[in-house]
Amino acid sequence: MASSTLGDTKIHELSKVSLKEPILVQGLPGLGYVGKVAVDFFIEKLKPKKIAELYSSYLLFPDGNLGINISEDGTYSLPKYEFYAYSEHEPHVIFLTGDAQPSVTGQYEVASMVLDYVQQYGGKMVFTMGGYGTRSSGDVGAVYAVVGESILGERLKKLGAKLAKGGAVTGAAGVILGIGLRRGLHCAGLLGATTGVYPDLEAARAVIQMLTGVSNMQLELKDLDREIEDMRKKMEKFRPSESEESKESEEKLSEEDKGRYIT
Amino acid sequence: MASSTLGDTKIHELSKVSLKEPILVQGLPGLGYVGKVAVDFFIEKLKPKKIAELYSSYLLFPDGNLGINISEDGTYSLPKYEFYAYSEHEPHVIFLTGDAQPSVTGQYEVASMVLDYVQQYGGKMVFTMGGYGTRSSGDVGAVYAVVGESILGERLKKLGAKLAKGGAVTGAAGVILGIGLRRGLHCAGLLGATTGVYPDLEAARAVIQMLTGVSNMQLELKDLDREIEDMRKKMEKFRPSESEESKESEEKLSEEDKGRYIT
Amino acid sequence: MASSTLGDTKIHELSKVSLKEPILVQGLPGLGYVGKVAVDFFIEKLKPKKIAELYSSYLLFPDGNLGINISEDGTYSLPKYEFYAYSEHEPHVIFLTGDAQPSVTGQYEVASMVLDYVQQYGGKMVFTMGGYGTRSSGDVGAVYAVVGESILGERLKKLGAKLAKGGAVTGAAGVILGIGLRRGLHCAGLLGATTGVYPDLEAARAVIQMLTGVSNMQLELKDLDREIEDMRKKMEKFRPSESEESKESEEKLSEEDKGRYIT
Amino acid sequence: MASSTLGDTKIHELSKVSLKEPILVQGLPGLGYVGKVAVDFFIEKLKPKKIAELYSSYLLFPDGNLGINISEDGTYSLPKYEFYAYSEHEPHVIFLTGDAQPSVTGQYEVASMVLDYVQQYGGKMVFTMGGYGTRSSGDVGAVYAVVGESILGERLKKLGAKLAKGGAVTGAAGVILGIGLRRGLHCAGLLGATTGVYPDLEAARAVIQMLTGVSNMQLELKDLDREIEDMRKKMEKFRPSESEESKESEEKLSEEDKGRYIT
Repeated sequence: MASSTLGDTKIHELSKVSLKEPILVQGLPGLGYVGKVAVDFFIEKLKPKKIAELYSSYLLFPDGNLGINISEDGTYSLPKYEFYAYSEHEPHVIFLTGDAQPSVTGQYEVASMVLDYVQQYGGKMVFTMGGYGTRSSGDVGAVYAVVGESILGERLKKLGAKLAKGGAVTGAAGVILGIGLRRGLHCAGLLGATTGVYPDLEAARAVIQMLTGVSNMQLELKDLDREIEDMRKKMEKFRPSESEESKESEEKLSEEDKGRYIT
Repeated sequence: MASSTLGDTKIHELSKVSLKEPILVQGLPGLGYVGKVAVDFFIEKLKPKKIAELYSSYLLFPDGNLGINISEDGTYSLPKYEFYAYSEHEPHVIFLTGDAQPSVTGQYEVASMVLDYVQQYGGKMVFTMGGYGTRSSGDVGAVYAVVGESILGERLKKLGAKLAKGGAVTGAAGVILGIGLRRGLHCAGLLGATTGVYPDLEAARAVIQMLTGVSNMQLELKDLDREIEDMRKKMEKFRPSESEESKESEEKLSEEDKGRYIT
Repeated sequence: MASSTLGDTKIHELSKVSLKEPILVQGLPGLGYVGKVAVDFFIEKLKPKKIAELYSSYLLFPDGNLGINISEDGTYSLPKYEFYAYSEHEPHVIFLTGDAQPSVTGQYEVASMVLDYVQQYGGKMVFTMGGYGTRSSGDVGAVYAVVGESILGERLKKLGAKLAKGGAVTGAAGVILGIGLRRGLHCAGLLGATTGVYPDLEAARAVIQMLTGVSNMQLELKDLDREIEDMRKKMEKFRPSESEESKESEEKLSEEDKGRYIT
Repeated sequence: MASSTLGDTKIHELSKVSLKEPILVQGLPGLGYVGKVAVDFFIEKLKPKKIAELYSSYLLFPDGNLGINISEDGTYSLPKYEFYAYSEHEPHVIFLTGDAQPSVTGQYEVASMVLDYVQQYGGKMVFTMGGYGTRSSGDVGAVYAVVGESILGERLKKLGAKLAKGGAVTGAAGVILGIGLRRGLHCAGLLGATTGVYPDLEAARAVIQMLTGVSNMQLELKDLDREIEDMRKKMEKFRPSESEESKESEEKLSEEDKGRYIT
């Protein structure tokens, strides 16, 4: 019995939906959790339908290990991406959220599969949301944009975004923009300036507003403050630190990590 | 002559047995050696039949190197998993023990092959045993459970287990639970609270008792203390530290490690 | 939907050209940026036609991450190799420049694909340009050569090069020479002595002159000083440090790197 | 144009020879260079015929980089294994020497291909030679053995070897013994006690004598001291430190290594 499971990335489709050129909006854990807080806000607010999950041997914990995340009720799951489809109004959107990023080795494979999936639905546009590190708290609230084409940069500038002028965007938010551009998709990264505080709700709010503007999504933002706060509480599942009990659990597991094996 | 040995994980079957929906019980080296001490206790006590070995280029030593383990008589073997089948009474069980864990790169492949093998026999249930780091020695003896479904959590709670409420289980004990759940198997991890002392016999005893209870294995536990002590001596083969001679050997080899090559 | 994108290195041909046994001249980022400054000088001066790009999941940033490089106008691109064809005079040349080097894992694959591509055009000769670390600034201006065959070493010595007498050349400049030699190509590495200052224009100038001499390229060198200076300014796109704004961007991104995720 | 060069290990056969169940004798760079000094002594003394070379993207320099080794005359080559066949007297022998060890990822693949190659000739026995770290210089001269079967251990003990009693042998010397044993070959590792001094000629001498004894090779050992000294000089090509000039080269290259790219 020999093995044949190399490149173990799979998308598990939960339901087929009818979508018209959906925009891909990706938000994953990262600096200040800006991207993840933002995408989870949209999911909370628009209540899109969950249509697929992606599992991969490349979806590692931030410490580089593989394993399972434990929920408050003792159940668990492998790190995963989740796809949600919104088709109530145009533009149609596929939201991509998740609780891990791929390892360097898997970044291309995972990003390619995500784009394959979205392009099946006729998707032609990709937005990634994330954080943009700054040392000045006065800069928080600004959104820096990177764009696949200048025309998209012009639109974003009119909406108040600044164009990034150098450096790099590493990780999943950068790689999917890079591969998307190679495939001829319209792509932009919206990066909220953040000092790295976790989770950075101010930065997330700025990114949410920018995306709503540029994409013409019909979304009521008046309760944004309260709802962002709700999201913050949800995020803590992924990095428990409030309740004494879950905090203790986390510390215990961190100790185990040091011994390399956590079984 | 070109190579074709990528993904070099193989299960070598030693004998075919007849099993009825065997439970997989996995215990591998890890925190406090809790899982390995526990599974080796069951193997010692129930004398199941060895039915297979798994070899893999992903089974690394804890320091990240590949190589061979030397026995007391100068013979050696590659790191491996060993499968033992118990079919004297129901429930039937396949015990999985080993002297290494897969590298991050190989975790999915190795866990997938283990489950393929057990599912060939109709296996539908997976228990992994391991340690759960705690700073308080007063917590030792407690068993924390993670479960694939809530109903299993209820059963374990009635038997005295606590449900873990956050964090993560990394390594082989976590990954196989994650993949098992994705395949629709009934899965639980039994994690004995341990301060990390090696080997943690108290923690192992608690896990053994919990597994015996939840699985309805017919096992006499009255001599547990003495037998656990026997196991401890066996474990030392994997981490020699008692006899002057083997201690010396280990130190020598450790020195060699620093020079990267040990040949 | 399972993945099939392992070994994700692709050459994207932009146009077909007619070339007669073109010499491959490779210059990539490295010590003192000697090789990249030198090859970009030839591209600037000879204005060859861009014929192809190579993208690969193995083209990492120097910090080991994957992602996209941001230009001054907010647009971005994945790290890539670029091929330029010169066929105005003989010898015909394919210049290979790029903004990244492959990871160790990908060095053989990327170098093999580059050689496949050049050999399609009948290429039989490979020069790589790079830096050769020295502690003595008095040595700067010297060119050390490594050669696949002694006869090429003799020619280079007559032109003033010194032959390297031991040690190793690691990275893309070394690997492509190694594989090229295995394929029976005529290969040499021209390494300009450098103290590692960035970018080392003196070292690049020496390498440019040596390559022009050994290859019989018809190239006017009298404005070398001024043009080298122009190249220096272009290089700064890859390591911005002059304008306040781009410097700030870079620092921000560096901070993000520390948090592992940059999204 | 997509890539297809994964698992890039190849054996290049230089000539076909007729061999009768040749013994494989492997000596690679490692602790005290014991194994490599020893195998190169046999090659020097017995003048076997070079029959093959193995190249692999997994053959890394000790610092984990890939590249080319530079010879004294400025020529270079990729790291490689070399196979030499001795068939003048029985037992026939294939000597395996090399200037690098495989990375952890490639150890199984490279060892498997070496054994495939030797088994084509009917080989049934494998000896690896290496160093065995000790802190006591009084122990130098002793040979520690690890054996695939007890009967071989008995023979070696009669010849004066000590059996190793625990620990591990990591790297190529260990892995090939492990895989050889899995294939049913007769295998032993002969490890000369060494304090790690480079190169350890005393340790190599002890291993040479032990191998000559156990294999019944007809080899005159009276000039061993002088010839070992000759070998020492050859070894310095791989780690130059005597002549001022090559020493300088090495230092330069080491500096380059720090900057990650050496081009």
